[in-house]
Amino acid sequence: MSQELTVKPFSMYFDLISGMSNERSTTKRHLSNMRGMFSNGEALEAMIEKENSLMYEFFELEMPEKDGHLLFGTSIVYPGKVGNEYFMTKGHFHTILDTAEVYYCLGGKGYMLMENPEGDWIAEEMTPGKAVYVPGRYAHRSINVGDEPMITFFVFRADAGHDYGTIETKGYRKLIVENEGKVEIVDNPKWGV
Amino acid sequence: MSQELTVKPFSMYFDLISGMSNERSTTKRHLSNMRGMFSNGEALEAMIEKENSLMYEFFELEMPEKDGHLLFGTSIVYPGKVGNEYFMTKGHFHTILDTAEVYYCLGGKGYMLMENPEGDWIAEEMTPGKAVYVPGRYAHRSINVGDEPMITFFVFRADAGHDYGTIETKGYRKLIVENEGKVEIVDNPKWGV
Repeated sequence: MSQELTVKPFSMYFDLISGMSNERSTTKRHLSNMRGMFSNGEALEAMIEKENSLMYEFFELEMPEKDGHLLFGTSIVYPGKVGNEYFMTKGHFHTILDTAEVYYCLGGKGYMLMENPEGDWIAEEMTPGKAVYVPGRYAHRSINVGDEPMITFFVFRADAGHDYGTIETKGYRKLIVENEGKVEIVDNPKWGV
Repeated sequence: MSQELTVKPFSMYFDLISGMSNERSTTKRHLSNMRGMFSNGEALEAMIEKENSLMYEFFELEMPEKDGHLLFGTSIVYPGKVGNEYFMTKGHFHTILDTAEVYYCLGGKGYMLMENPEGDWIAEEMTPGKAVYVPGRYAHRSINVGDEPMITFFVFRADAGHDYGTIETKGYRKLIVENEGKVEIVDNPKWGV
C-alpha cells in the first residue's frame, strides 16, 4: 500500500451486503461524469439538471505497478436508466491488453458486457454468487438491470492499467436497454462513429 | 478453460453462503492427507482411525499457465482441532515466488497465517467481509478457529503454481492453537527440523 516495491500483508473490510468499506473513500462517477457514454445525451442532460446523482463508485487501492501484485476492491453500480439504457460503468480495456480480471457478484442483477478488438462480444449475467472471468483483450463494463445496487468484488493485475479512451471514442458495439419492460441487447447505432 | 492460450469469457457460480458450486467438483483434503502437518501426529492418527473426515476442499479451475490469466475459486475449511491445533490448509508458497494472492472471506472465522523466507510472519484475521492481501514471497495457510466452515473466494495469477514441499518439509514458524478456550499463536517447536 505504498510506492515501495515491497508490500506487507494487509487486510481491508468490504461489507458483503453493501460492498462499502469505512477504511477508505471510493472513486465516484456522477451522471455528469458519464457525458458521451449514453445514446440519449439529451436525456442525460435533463437528469443532470434535476440532480447530478451518483451512477457508480468503486475502490482504487494503491500498489506498485508490478506484474506480481494484484489490485482488488468492490464496485457498486446504482439502479437507473438514461432514456432506455441502464446505468453502467464507463468500461475499459486494460492498458496491458492481455491481462484478465475476475469479478465476483455479491448483490444485485445485471451484466458484464465484454468485447475484444476482433469484434467478439458477450454479455455474462451477473447475479449473487456469479464469478465472471474477463480474459485479456476484452473491454468490460458492468450494467445494472435491476432495482438494487449491483455489487461486485474484483481482482486484476496491479500493472494492468486502465484504457478508458478507446471506449470513450468508439463506444461499445452493443447496448443493454429496456424495451417494453424487458432487457434487450441491441446494436449501438453510434458505434465507431 | 481449455489448454489453448485463448480463453473466452465465462462465468461460474459459487454460493455466497456455502461457497459450493454444482458446476464442478472440489479437490478434497481428508484428515489422512494431512499427515505430518500437525504437531500432534498421534491425535491425528486416532481421529483418522475413527473417521477419515474432510478437513478442507477447494476448486481448481484449469487455465493456460500465462501471466495474463488469473485463477479463482472458493476454499472451505471445516471446523475442528487435531489435539489443540485448529483445522487448516496445508499452506504453500507460489512456485513463482513473487506473485500475490487475494482472499475474500465470505463466512466463518479464522486466520490467514503468512510467512516469508526472510522470517517475517503475520496472522491476518478472517471474518466475513475481510479481504486479505498475500503479497509475493509469503507462504499462506487458512486456519479455521470458529464453529462454522470458513469460506473464502481467492484469486491469483494462473502461472503462479503451488510449492507445497517447502512447508511439508520445514513446517510453519507459528502454530495457531486453542489454549484454555482461547486462540493463541505459538512458536512451532518442530519448525525447520
